[in-house]
Amino acid sequence: MDDSSVQAFLEQAPLCADHVAAKVQRFLKVHQAPVDGNGGSAPSLPRPIVLVTSGGTTVPLERNCVRFIDNFSKGTRGALSAEQFLQAGYAVIFLSRHGSAQPFVSEFQEQLGAETLTDTFELGSDGSIHVRGKVQAQMAAAVAHVQGVLGQGRYLQLPYTTLFEYLKYLQAVALALAPYGPSVLFYMAAAVSDFYMPWSDMAEHKIQSADGPLTLTLAKVPKMLSTLRRCWCPAAMLVSFKLETDEQLLLRKAYSAVEGQGVHLVVANELHSRKDRVWLVQQAAAAQQQVAASQQQAAASQQQAAGMAVQNIERPPHVAVIEELLVAEVVASHQQHMRQAAEAAAAAMAQG
Amino acid sequence: MDDSSVQAFLEQAPLCADHVAAKVQRFLKVHQAPVDGNGGSAPSLPRPIVLVTSGGTTVPLERNCVRFIDNFSKGTRGALSAEQFLQAGYAVIFLSRHGSAQPFVSEFQEQLGAETLTDTFELGSDGSIHVRGKVQAQMAAAVAHVQGVLGQGRYLQLPYTTLFEYLKYLQAVALALAPYGPSVLFYMAAAVSDFYMPWSDMAEHKIQSADGPLTLTLAKVPKMLSTLRRCWCPAAMLVSFKLETDEQLLLRKAYSAVEGQGVHLVVANELHSRKDRVWLVQQAAAAQQQVAASQQQAAASQQQAAGMAVQNIERPPHVAVIEELLVAEVVASHQQHMRQAAEAAAAAMAQG
Repeated sequence: MDDSSVQAFLEQAPLCADHVAAKVQRFLKVHQAPVDGNGGSAPSLPRPIVLVTSGGTTVPLERNCVRFIDNFSKGTRGALSAEQFLQAGYAVIFLSRHGSAQPFVSEFQEQLGAETLTDTFELGSDGSIHVRGKVQAQMAAAVAHVQGVLGQGRYLQLPYTTLFEYLKYLQAVALALAPYGPSVLFYMAAAVSDFYMPWSDMAEHKIQSADGPLTLTLAKVPKMLSTLRRCWCPAAMLVSFKLETDEQLLLRKAYSAVEGQGVHLVVANELHSRKDRVWLVQQAAAAQQQVAASQQQAAASQQQAAGMAVQNIERPPHVAVIEELLVAEVVASHQQHMRQAAEAAAAAMAQG
Repeated sequence: MDDSSVQAFLEQAPLCADHVAAKVQRFLKVHQAPVDGNGGSAPSLPRPIVLVTSGGTTVPLERNCVRFIDNFSKGTRGALSAEQFLQAGYAVIFLSRHGSAQPFVSEFQEQLGAETLTDTFELGSDGSIHVRGKVQAQMAAAVAHVQGVLGQGRYLQLPYTTLFEYLKYLQAVALALAPYGPSVLFYMAAAVSDFYMPWSDMAEHKIQSADGPLTLTLAKVPKMLSTLRRCWCPAAMLVSFKLETDEQLLLRKAYSAVEGQGVHLVVANELHSRKDRVWLVQQAAAAQQQVAASQQQAAASQQQAAGMAVQNIERPPHVAVIEELLVAEVVASHQQHMRQAAEAAAAAMAQG
């Protein structure tokens, strides 16, 4: 893959990500283990850290942007996954589209309207306001969760809107996380546009409709995942997502992400069934090691194709959200990734 | 204008608006004055009714939609205006983009995230949940407002997402409101796409990025406002919005909406200054009658161009939102519209 086209794309994006890098550095300080007296060794983290990306990127069509191309994603997958990672003990950086679903509040967001106020609250005879009995337990549990993770400094939310913001911020976060090596997990659930309107081709003002049909020519966005994997944060584990509406195409595209871009694990999902079923795709060799290590194969079936292992995860009726199962599998893979890295480091030290 | 192209557009839109028409009919029944014993006369409303449209329409690019073109609009203008109309005594139908700003909750929506929970609520030592003191008064006031308007049946929310839904639902609402004549106001604050991908040109599945740059050809959306004005609901008052980033173009486009599409009043706003300044554009003759009738000219300046009256509204620092001033002016115009219609009806009856 061509890292120079990635670099050129990022250089033309008219914005700066320094404030994001600074936020991530402050966040990491909280979680960084004290450096031991030997000095010179890389910093380490007492707990694993995950970057969850979520929501869809926008592609502006005008410099003073009124119109844009958007990718369908409410961000529910990302928000629910972030909750699961927090419950699994991770420090979570949540890079999500402004206004998309957020952890612990996604259920309230979906239907938020004037009626939500009267469904959620009631007024006392003295004008005081109270949470209605039927939602008290659920909301109290959510508040307690949030208080816990915020109190431990385990949650950082970073909002983006455009494709340019998303990729600049992703690079800034990845470079900041690079020193922490295999304890870092990238969980790329955002729906990132494949096409964009180059800044140099953009109209200054809102495109006018007077002149008949509109023809837009969009350039391809350079593939960032392989640059992330090889250059920005090479020791981390990388999990990416494929969403298609055509199941035939879906697995083929997942295979090529594993082979061509060096992604460790691809979560493949089809638009209409994505809340009930996903496929995990990885190199067959990696999967075998994980099967040996993991005991959780009950609800999952395995099939193999062209050196690839495909694991099908289906949500049984008693499981509220498939992200419970999905994140448990990803966490198991990440533990395996960390163990292997530790073993390789020990072996290198023994040889040295 | 060409009503047949509007009809053709609506016929090809692959969805049905019967459920929307049924909701509006039920809503209207609450507000309908009892028909007098003379029979045969049109139904009337004891209070005026406004359709507020809000948020941006999406234009799907694939039949199994993953990507779409969107129009920038959070819907704040529409949500705040709906609040003002409710306070002015109107019955309000709020046709708004799913997930866009909603009346009485828009302030909470903008920044909704996990932190919102801990900012808004605190837990008692027994695990019970309470609204924090600093937001109690504001939230209690919002809940009381909502209880009031819902209790009177004065608020109906209709969500849309795509351009097709928006226009089909608009037609259904307009046809249902037509019998109520001049007491109906259309306040079209939604950002409606000028371009669309015809269903017949759409790819079945997600467009693939493998084949290099993407060229999209979009057709023009037929202008609906003149069809609404002349065919669907001819006796109502029609207020439309123009948003541009180029101020030079803005007033010219507002004039042509008044002249070419028969819009009674155009609210012209520029993207970056829209929360502090708007222009009201109408036929000079209509404006003069209103000036005679209205006493509220303090903060407004008048200028005239090519038979058009342009009124500039600027928000002074002590006014929280410009929609207070804007809706007050629109309500005054609508009262004038209803008076004129009543006078014309009386004159016609005297002649007959």
